[in-house]
Amino acid sequence: MFLGPSNSEGAGKVSLLKKVPALKDGDFTLAECTAILLYLSRKYNTPDHWYPSDIQKRAQVDEYLSWHHANIRANAPKTMWIKVLIPLFTGQPLPSEKLQEVMEGLSTSLKQFEERFLQDKAFIIGSEISLADLVAIVELMQPVGVGCDIFEDRPRLMEWRRRVEDAVGKELFFQAHEMILSVKELSNIQIDPQLKEQLAPVLMKMLK
Amino acid sequence: MFLGPSNSEGAGKVSLLKKVPALKDGDFTLAECTAILLYLSRKYNTPDHWYPSDIQKRAQVDEYLSWHHANIRANAPKTMWIKVLIPLFTGQPLPSEKLQEVMEGLSTSLKQFEERFLQDKAFIIGSEISLADLVAIVELMQPVGVGCDIFEDRPRLMEWRRRVEDAVGKELFFQAHEMILSVKELSNIQIDPQLKEQLAPVLMKMLK
Repeated sequence: MFLGPSNSEGAGKVSLLKKVPALKDGDFTLAECTAILLYLSRKYNTPDHWYPSDIQKRAQVDEYLSWHHANIRANAPKTMWIKVLIPLFTGQPLPSEKLQEVMEGLSTSLKQFEERFLQDKAFIIGSEISLADLVAIVELMQPVGVGCDIFEDRPRLMEWRRRVEDAVGKELFFQAHEMILSVKELSNIQIDPQLKEQLAPVLMKMLK
Repeated sequence: MFLGPSNSEGAGKVSLLKKVPALKDGDFTLAECTAILLYLSRKYNTPDHWYPSDIQKRAQVDEYLSWHHANIRANAPKTMWIKVLIPLFTGQPLPSEKLQEVMEGLSTSLKQFEERFLQDKAFIIGSEISLADLVAIVELMQPVGVGCDIFEDRPRLMEWRRRVEDAVGKELFFQAHEMILSVKELSNIQIDPQLKEQLAPVLMKMLK
């Protein structure tokens, strides 16, 4: 089985949607992070808490995964585009209003995340970690990696993050986020001018 | 069990996220269309083709449902905001460039939908209809309801729609889309001026 992140050579060939992450299992290829996690949980019959067999708990994971797309996923990664990737390709920083606008959207989403989903529970669906927490945390570490520490003034969110770190294991947690947490170092690399010219307008469009 | 569309009185009380559609089953409440469909398919043990037990086919449904959010769902309903709902609350039509921009985004999504998902298959995951087709069709009927017939110049998409209509049953299909297909009639209703003032900026923000 091949499971590749964005910087792996095989990923472009694998994903049907030419998107990363991508999974290849024999002749079978699959894109989309949530679909891949669900597939792996079924194929390897992972512990029940990741995607509980209880239909109400399972529905709560599904509810979060669906909400996630138009909220956390729609906002959090934009911080990386604005602070690192777009300046890298255009050669100029974006006006600060752009970041402020995204941070406001993210702030609204985080308020909902805390009040509607997390509430006073240890994890999104209750006392045990599930795929919902995993999908949320990897997206929420992206702003952290570019210097927008969204956990700083949100104690409830920070406590949840600590519980996720403990449940996953601190070593694995930081290994999984190593690239994201050092993404600012990308600012120092040189990029082919032609590639810059091609990609800059595409990147700008993604911010819309 | 209560399952309410946006115009039902109970919906606001039911949905944890104050969103519609919403489901209430005893004490259990659930928002998000895809989570509700998955819950119902499990609770009522619906025929296998809706969400196949084969893990690869199931993964393909999940892949589509995930992709759907940032593509079809992110574009198709905006046509209704632009053509009917925002003019209704602001009292003025939006500049035509706004609709054009949304239609271009939708066009890109539809190209991917046909080439990556539908291909030369009868339905999204093969020869049988699944939840992926249902989730896609209800979103794609929204532009049709406001006069942007996206099926007109897309024979492959139109053939797929006919197959979905047949699989669901034509009567049920049109019953389910009756409100969407007559949404233009909303333009004639009178709205409380204070409500207009409150909602206009919120609606405009949704277009971003």
